[in-house]
Amino acid sequence: MSPAPHTFVTRVTGSVHVIGAGLLGASIGLGLRERGVEVTLEDQSPTVVALAADYGAGRARAEHDPHPSIVIVATPPDVVADVVASALARFPDAVVTDVASVKLAPFVELKRRGVDLTNYVGSHPMAGRERGGAIMARADLFTARPWVICRDEETPASVLSAVEAIALDLGSVLIEMTPEEHDRSVGLVSHVPQVISSLLAARLVPAPELSMNLAGAGVRDTTRIAASDPELWVQILGANSEPIVEVLDAFVADVQQFADALRAIEAPGSRRQVADLMAQGNLGVKRLPGKHGSSERFTSITVLIDDQPGELARLLTELGDLGINMEDLRLEHSPGAEIGFAEIAVLPEVAERATTDLTERGWRTL
Amino acid sequence: MSPAPHTFVTRVTGSVHVIGAGLLGASIGLGLRERGVEVTLEDQSPTVVALAADYGAGRARAEHDPHPSIVIVATPPDVVADVVASALARFPDAVVTDVASVKLAPFVELKRRGVDLTNYVGSHPMAGRERGGAIMARADLFTARPWVICRDEETPASVLSAVEAIALDLGSVLIEMTPEEHDRSVGLVSHVPQVISSLLAARLVPAPELSMNLAGAGVRDTTRIAASDPELWVQILGANSEPIVEVLDAFVADVQQFADALRAIEAPGSRRQVADLMAQGNLGVKRLPGKHGSSERFTSITVLIDDQPGELARLLTELGDLGINMEDLRLEHSPGAEIGFAEIAVLPEVAERATTDLTERGWRTL
Repeated sequence: MSPAPHTFVTRVTGSVHVIGAGLLGASIGLGLRERGVEVTLEDQSPTVVALAADYGAGRARAEHDPHPSIVIVATPPDVVADVVASALARFPDAVVTDVASVKLAPFVELKRRGVDLTNYVGSHPMAGRERGGAIMARADLFTARPWVICRDEETPASVLSAVEAIALDLGSVLIEMTPEEHDRSVGLVSHVPQVISSLLAARLVPAPELSMNLAGAGVRDTTRIAASDPELWVQILGANSEPIVEVLDAFVADVQQFADALRAIEAPGSRRQVADLMAQGNLGVKRLPGKHGSSERFTSITVLIDDQPGELARLLTELGDLGINMEDLRLEHSPGAEIGFAEIAVLPEVAERATTDLTERGWRTL
Repeated sequence: MSPAPHTFVTRVTGSVHVIGAGLLGASIGLGLRERGVEVTLEDQSPTVVALAADYGAGRARAEHDPHPSIVIVATPPDVVADVVASALARFPDAVVTDVASVKLAPFVELKRRGVDLTNYVGSHPMAGRERGGAIMARADLFTARPWVICRDEETPASVLSAVEAIALDLGSVLIEMTPEEHDRSVGLVSHVPQVISSLLAARLVPAPELSMNLAGAGVRDTTRIAASDPELWVQILGANSEPIVEVLDAFVADVQQFADALRAIEAPGSRRQVADLMAQGNLGVKRLPGKHGSSERFTSITVLIDDQPGELARLLTELGDLGINMEDLRLEHSPGAEIGFAEIAVLPEVAERATTDLTERGWRTL
């Protein structure tokens, strides 16, 4: 094992046992090992355990090993309830958590079986990669990502703080929610946008090639996540279908109302209906947290950049020289043109100075 | 007038008369004046003409001025047909075009009136800004943007090339389409994504604040354009309602089918239906042109950056030093965390080297 790059304060006490040595399990192992925590691994597949161990995520659990203080279940969602129940039985003194992306179904199933859940609290680190497996694992996979912990009134403080210690040691930002709140929240802000983006992109399939030339930044942004893996998403959506369907039904009603207003655009009230629905969209997008969780909106400046290596770096360096803090950046390329646009978001109060200073330095701003 | 910054080859011959001196009209005037083209202006409002003239977009047309060779109608869409008809009558030797964002309705109206359209060809430069008016006009507004020209079989070559000369002199990329193709294309790749994005964002309005903390890059991208101005969009959508409604109806059917499959996710065939629709989304997003109009897809590398000025510039400078060409860039901030992620798109063949080189230089990549 390589030495830790920084001096860490480690919150986790005792050893940690990880069941399921895929992307999440192996990443948790790697991150905790970096902090000097003893990690043991277990997986249905001995090869997967050996691979994760090779990467430094921990070592296979041996018969005579002392009991872990924390067990982390990192298996696919459909077996989580089984594995959590068996972990609670096998390690009665350990705190058990799982990291599945859906939280209500396994909790309900465990309750139904009458399992004593005193030592269990479910959690969900909002991190992932496009491809899975221990081979893709990273010690810093969870850095700066939200880690949801689903306690209830009965969760003892000691159990909660054990799982919080894992999340904090791995660099995550703690968020506390009930399983219902969690599933509804990810349904709304992650699962539904995925479905809508995929179905919007699907509408591009029958379009003539010519139409694609008029595609700009709007449609590209709106459909970017439509490139996601269908197999993975069938699992996620299937395990959280209820809250997703509820939002989709409301959304369908909105789209139908909108289409009906457009169909009869000359009828009295139609234009107002269209405008009102779009104004609701303005309100909705303002609710999304921006940088550092604030809902602050920025002013954007578009700068033309020659499409050659180094130009964007030069622009950003000059922005730094000018003392202008860039809050966000988006790039856009025009089809067929050897030029690009950098859309820079800055605080409204510096926007005018930024434009003037950049223009003085020879940049073309829009 | 300031001297042209470069030596240009000017394609436009004769003088150009612009009717409507708002953002587009004044920007066309500015761009053509920079190339030494004589530009006269006209607007319902004498103040608007005076303002555009002050900015250098041309001068007010005088009674005794010789006839222009080209007339550009840059008025709001609802009066385009009227203004084009009157321009063709007033300047029988001039080529007349318009730059409205919808092309079929004015064309049909002109035909209906029996206007001789030999000297007319409609066009649509795909450029704009969030705010309108001559005050926002820019000579380079059209640089590298697609400029659609809606010729038909009867358009004489000389008429077509006169309008092409305008678009090329202003730095645009020419695209030829029929009015029907144009309206369907912008309906699909611009108007429908706007509607969907707005209505998806509208669904965030009733959500609890807590849910917003789980919002990631996916929902942010999908709803970004939902911040657009409802009043402006009511005009645009109203003028192109037919193709938009057609796509919205098909989209609604897709969402309903998807929701029904999710509702009965355990039924035989449901999971496959979900997967198939998402796979269609994969195909659709692949059709969008990437950099320089190619449909090539890139490999993305996520780099952790400390959230302080200069860090991103340093990353891009080092990428340049390493000879790695960045094809695209997206930034992401985690709520509550003092760290950000830069998602860099590179050609698949350099992805591994880029990751290795960046890691060697101390960057943390995911």
